[in-house]
Amino acid sequence: MINIGIIGVGTVGSSVITILNQNKDIIQARAGKFLNIKTAVVKNVSKNRDIDIKVTDNINDVLDDPSIDIVVELMGGVDEAFEVVKKALKMGKAVVTANKALLAYHRYELQECAGDIAFEYEAAVAGGIPIITALRDGLSANHILSIKGILNGTTNYMLDAMINDSVSYEYILNKAQNLGYAEANPTFDVDGFDAAHKLLILSSIAYGIDAKPEDILIEGIKNIKPDDIKFAKDFNYAIKLLGIAKKIGSKVELRVHPVLISKDKMIAKIDGVMNGISVVGDKVGETLYYGAGAGGDATASAVVANIIDIARAGKASPMLGFNKPLEDNLTLVAKNDIKCKYYVRFDVANQPGVLHSISKILSDKNISIETMLQNQKNNQRANLLITIYETYEKDLNDAIDNIKQLDFVDKTISKIRIEN
Amino acid sequence: MINIGIIGVGTVGSSVITILNQNKDIIQARAGKFLNIKTAVVKNVSKNRDIDIKVTDNINDVLDDPSIDIVVELMGGVDEAFEVVKKALKMGKAVVTANKALLAYHRYELQECAGDIAFEYEAAVAGGIPIITALRDGLSANHILSIKGILNGTTNYMLDAMINDSVSYEYILNKAQNLGYAEANPTFDVDGFDAAHKLLILSSIAYGIDAKPEDILIEGIKNIKPDDIKFAKDFNYAIKLLGIAKKIGSKVELRVHPVLISKDKMIAKIDGVMNGISVVGDKVGETLYYGAGAGGDATASAVVANIIDIARAGKASPMLGFNKPLEDNLTLVAKNDIKCKYYVRFDVANQPGVLHSISKILSDKNISIETMLQNQKNNQRANLLITIYETYEKDLNDAIDNIKQLDFVDKTISKIRIEN
Repeated sequence: MINIGIIGVGTVGSSVITILNQNKDIIQARAGKFLNIKTAVVKNVSKNRDIDIKVTDNINDVLDDPSIDIVVELMGGVDEAFEVVKKALKMGKAVVTANKALLAYHRYELQECAGDIAFEYEAAVAGGIPIITALRDGLSANHILSIKGILNGTTNYMLDAMINDSVSYEYILNKAQNLGYAEANPTFDVDGFDAAHKLLILSSIAYGIDAKPEDILIEGIKNIKPDDIKFAKDFNYAIKLLGIAKKIGSKVELRVHPVLISKDKMIAKIDGVMNGISVVGDKVGETLYYGAGAGGDATASAVVANIIDIARAGKASPMLGFNKPLEDNLTLVAKNDIKCKYYVRFDVANQPGVLHSISKILSDKNISIETMLQNQKNNQRANLLITIYETYEKDLNDAIDNIKQLDFVDKTISKIRIEN
Repeated sequence: MINIGIIGVGTVGSSVITILNQNKDIIQARAGKFLNIKTAVVKNVSKNRDIDIKVTDNINDVLDDPSIDIVVELMGGVDEAFEVVKKALKMGKAVVTANKALLAYHRYELQECAGDIAFEYEAAVAGGIPIITALRDGLSANHILSIKGILNGTTNYMLDAMINDSVSYEYILNKAQNLGYAEANPTFDVDGFDAAHKLLILSSIAYGIDAKPEDILIEGIKNIKPDDIKFAKDFNYAIKLLGIAKKIGSKVELRVHPVLISKDKMIAKIDGVMNGISVVGDKVGETLYYGAGAGGDATASAVVANIIDIARAGKASPMLGFNKPLEDNLTLVAKNDIKCKYYVRFDVANQPGVLHSISKILSDKNISIETMLQNQKNNQRANLLITIYETYEKDLNDAIDNIKQLDFVDKTISKIRIEN
């Protein structure tokens, strides 16, 4: 028998308890042992939970109990969770967590703390999709060339509706909030931070890169306008918020932002509230993993898989896959040194010289135009839609700043990266 | 250091050797040890292979060498491979194999033989996609409700071309053979046996079902006609050769056949020579895994992942996921007891009473029509396209036999199952 202590009984914690109970037949068959939830730590012990487990509001009832083998950290937050997980590991207890923010900031300290003790976190990235296992174990023979992930279901749901149902950002955000897909304060999702946390975890496994959210390029979906969506539809692009990791020589790029991506790509076919991750290895080529990235049961499925794994193996899988960095000299590309292809939209007056002036400014910055399209908006104004070859963002921003000085150009300019 | 003996140096074996050499930096970082290929067993030792490894044509140079820790079986075939793997396991050596036919027939005997010794076979199903790991470890908290897999790239490539490029079965088979996707004798692929072998392996992990290929329903893609493809296109269906496992109560259905499936399903979006597997768990919902199902490097990626796993863990993961059957009383549904939805096409004469006669025969067999469509072929003939609700295949076949007796019906009748 394996004794488990759960810290935090919210949506995911409740589902973990339910799954361990409802599926105990198959779980015992797979773990080879009975998995017993001995203690659950909650904030409010007087709340009726309809669970047959010892409930306490004292975390030390779990941490100091020598009979507890596995601690499941589902309390959320960073600082207190960090202390709790460290203590659990120091007490020799295996730890399972779904806490992506904790890992985004402290994964290497915790890896060091864990040593040979099992520390697992499959649920922290893409909910029920076993992407950690795939990346760490299934693709271990490969140099990972790229990871492109739809790592946030809320924004994927919103972008899908904005494109396929032609609804506004404001409308669909409100609907997502009503459906419980988005928080009252949606910043964490719509501004890309949630996806960034998950990308950092994946990049540690693939590359051993120890970056923090502050170190990487993060942009959300707020600035995508109906005219940009029309362009995407007209040219067979999907718009997706992707977490992207790319290895280029001994450099690794990490970035989270919306992209225009051909609808023919598998990752572009993932709609609604689902998650998906495309991973390209130097030997295996592209593989893709798809499923529910959130929700109590899907997330708990991954938590319980980790518990079974620990119960079965009795020892640790390497947490982050290994050394830091995984290959000699692998370093993070600075934000300013990232090169991308871009789509840019200018709202311009219908008058002579517009194209000449804009194309000169781009040319002066050595920015090379790939395609250009002008659409009349009305008698006075037009949209000038330009895609450009790979360039440094700084150069493009400088050019845009100069273009904004032209009096026939509206100051609101759209800019979306293009992924191949 | 871990010593490896490779038995069989064909396409996959050569790739295994290349990957262990080219990616040795990252493999050593991940395995924590140097992985040394000590001996390779080949048929023809005099052939120049440009590899720096001891080459022999005597399998016992591997099996009887006490310094070899892991045997990689890539010789193919069933009977001799079975003896070789058994002996390796009896000598206490871990075994990695990509041999799906061996596992389709002998997986439970080998599991018993392996006991606590590692026996891994990620490459045997869907090449480079880590589906075994996902199913055995990543989804272990779930009762598996269904598996639907595109497990054969050759037939997926052919069906894709037949539908999207409107080429004939004969043309695309010839092209697939020229491209090396299909064998000179394509039976194993086009008649569904390859997919069936893989489905049997997956069903052992998910359900602990010990069936042989002879025990399950297997149909290939030969009988799909242009008129059926036109129906599929007109009604937003893809046609895919799927390996399907479904749990219904305490029964498990296993079957391989072409299906009409809505293009909106993720599995229906997988085109070309790629593989993909949709797995539905009772807690996680649908997850999907996509990638290259064949090819030397992709398959070898999975073989090397298993080698790394064994080197790292030093002990066995449970090979088939466990007991047989995994849940009490889980049994295989007999072929005749499988119920499906069907699409049926009759080529009929344009004359009164046709519909009346056919619908009466269906009704007499208690077969319920869902949709019906009649298309004129020419002045004399029409296609009668019918979809029917779930029915036993035997009842449908009886009805079709009766309908064939009608003199206005052509004897060649199309019948394709429909998956939701």
